[in-house]
Amino acid sequence: MRILIINCGSSSLKYQFIDMENEFLLAKGLVERIGMDGSVLCQNRSGEKYKIEIPILDHKEAISFVLKALLDEKHGVISDVSEIDAIGHRVVHGGEFYSQSVIVDDTVIQNIKECVKLAPLHNPANLIGIEVCKGLMPSTPMVAVFDTAFHQTMPEESYVYALPYELYTQHSIRKYGFHGTSHKHVSEKAAEMLNKNINDLKIITCHLGNGASITAIKEGKSIDTSMGFTPLEGIPMGTRSGSIDPAIITFMIRELNLSVAEIDDILNKKSGVYGISGISSDFRDIEAADEDENKRAHLALEIFYSKVKKYIGYYAAAMGGVDCIVYTAGLGENSPEVREKTCRDLEFLGVSIDKDKNKVRGQALEVSTVDSKVKVLVIPTNEELMIAKDTQELVMDFKLFKEELEDKIIV
Amino acid sequence: MRILIINCGSSSLKYQFIDMENEFLLAKGLVERIGMDGSVLCQNRSGEKYKIEIPILDHKEAISFVLKALLDEKHGVISDVSEIDAIGHRVVHGGEFYSQSVIVDDTVIQNIKECVKLAPLHNPANLIGIEVCKGLMPSTPMVAVFDTAFHQTMPEESYVYALPYELYTQHSIRKYGFHGTSHKHVSEKAAEMLNKNINDLKIITCHLGNGASITAIKEGKSIDTSMGFTPLEGIPMGTRSGSIDPAIITFMIRELNLSVAEIDDILNKKSGVYGISGISSDFRDIEAADEDENKRAHLALEIFYSKVKKYIGYYAAAMGGVDCIVYTAGLGENSPEVREKTCRDLEFLGVSIDKDKNKVRGQALEVSTVDSKVKVLVIPTNEELMIAKDTQELVMDFKLFKEELEDKIIV
Repeated sequence: MRILIINCGSSSLKYQFIDMENEFLLAKGLVERIGMDGSVLCQNRSGEKYKIEIPILDHKEAISFVLKALLDEKHGVISDVSEIDAIGHRVVHGGEFYSQSVIVDDTVIQNIKECVKLAPLHNPANLIGIEVCKGLMPSTPMVAVFDTAFHQTMPEESYVYALPYELYTQHSIRKYGFHGTSHKHVSEKAAEMLNKNINDLKIITCHLGNGASITAIKEGKSIDTSMGFTPLEGIPMGTRSGSIDPAIITFMIRELNLSVAEIDDILNKKSGVYGISGISSDFRDIEAADEDENKRAHLALEIFYSKVKKYIGYYAAAMGGVDCIVYTAGLGENSPEVREKTCRDLEFLGVSIDKDKNKVRGQALEVSTVDSKVKVLVIPTNEELMIAKDTQELVMDFKLFKEELEDKIIV
Repeated sequence: MRILIINCGSSSLKYQFIDMENEFLLAKGLVERIGMDGSVLCQNRSGEKYKIEIPILDHKEAISFVLKALLDEKHGVISDVSEIDAIGHRVVHGGEFYSQSVIVDDTVIQNIKECVKLAPLHNPANLIGIEVCKGLMPSTPMVAVFDTAFHQTMPEESYVYALPYELYTQHSIRKYGFHGTSHKHVSEKAAEMLNKNINDLKIITCHLGNGASITAIKEGKSIDTSMGFTPLEGIPMGTRSGSIDPAIITFMIRELNLSVAEIDDILNKKSGVYGISGISSDFRDIEAADEDENKRAHLALEIFYSKVKKYIGYYAAAMGGVDCIVYTAGLGENSPEVREKTCRDLEFLGVSIDKDKNKVRGQALEVSTVDSKVKVLVIPTNEELMIAKDTQELVMDFKLFKEELEDKIIV
């Protein structure tokens, strides 16, 4: 089965085309600046790059160009659209509707629309992607894979805020959690690497990228996660504040005369390690400045390290212990420094990092010492492959179901 | 030395009059509804109650009535105001000015004024108390004891938020922490009870009352605490939300059309266990409802328990371990249930509660099992006595200093 994975942002679109027989990435690409000046599509096929610079007015055109690139005689990988067996869509918010991926039908589209109020920046773009694909390839089965789905197993005491209960029942204000596809993938992979049954493990997964979240996974289920109602809560990120005293916001409105839009902008785009350091949201820049003895760069790193470390303790307490800590995503996979510093002082939990092994970048490896009670693993995340796997599985089940149904009708 | 302790709220005033020679409480009292209908002063002298029901227009009148009650021929404890050797004032916010208690002078008054913007509900009332006492008893030395002072030892990575750094440098937005007098007192008492040097201990103090905060105390110093810029941050409380996704606030403004005043009211007065349960902010009422199988009451308790438990893990990670957990304040001292449930699943840290000992209420006792690696202590807090001790010490030093100065001048 060959599957197209679509990840639609508000003005960009990422895609991968994967042959599931051998999990081979046939092509991947990115459309940027949709509806803006300088829009461009870049496709990569086995290292060979193909670029289309052309005005791309909307997502419909963007997806048309994606198909064009995939079909391109010289740079493409298929000769007919029918060679796309299924499409997997990343959808940010599934609210309380979905605890797993689903075949897209009208009800699913309606439910994703219902969740727009919960993810006003992301769900509309995801919806456009679905609707455009439906228009262009009406007979190709599509699957929606939700960022929130994996966390739907959280118990009430993790997801209900200490707010008037009606804000939950009437306005859906609760913790949802994000990066679910990644947390699920790396926790399953961790059990495999440790050669253990995931039902016997207490795992803390640290997805540390430009967005960052940490999840407590007990018996294969998310029982708590650091992102919340939105992806703003939790640990500090590249440009996001993470959790702060909620009274700071009302203070900023009352005393600093900031508007709600300005506050959203500050908390999402001007905070995090960028806000503290004043330098960059990129850890490489901040680490460089720290080496030059820039105090705010140093502080930004220390705040990030100490918050991640404390969250590890927080989730160890949530699960009554921890067997395994997993690092993934940009920083988690590639920064030995981040792993070492966020495990600092955790000897009391039985965490011991092997400094040599911990030099690894971007590869799956156990980086704790042989006698470390808690295993520390680096596992590259691959959200697209997870989306593709879910898509394959659901589409195969769906086809089987349809065939059985047809058999019955014939009988 | 006999010391009057004053704790001024916006419409109330609590006081204690203590003989420091034997730490004996000579009298304590409460003035309520200052400037409102039905104002009243109640004084308690060794169990004997004395009540004045009379219009009390302002804090100046309130303090005059306090002196009147203390001087009362039948119910009082002194025959002349000069028998009050010193006055200790509880002041909520000392900003970054004070890391310990101070003798009140004009600079101190000015600095407390500077902090009004940080504690607009509390510092003005505290200031009035100081100024009225100064007017009525100009020659009596006064000491200000700050709720924030003990936490001024926190390292930068604990107190700086992941916000634009200018919000700290220009607008003083940082974590301050509160209940400092209580956290300091019970941590010192814990070291005494364990017969250890506090410099060798990692202590987590859980001040769980209607307001609640948890502090990590390493080598006798606060290194992190759950309350933040204001007393709203951290664990859920009686009516306060504690930490939530900051984006919930902008969502409530944008989508639910709530004003900043309404949001302040919701987060401070309609949230916490009251908001979840819809029943009460009093744990006794919620526990009773839980026994009647009220689901929201049960949920409120579970949320509270699990958050406290997770914070214990969070601060254990902050300190690289924990030797001792202290429970204090209303719930911490009096609820075996709260202590048991917030230590549940913490065996991996070496915490083991002795169910029999844990039945204790309102008394200092070690309630962990003999072989518990982490000692769990119940220690009643006594903020007034701590204020009195600080006051005594500073006033004695101050007198000594003045005498030495006079000697030098004479020489």
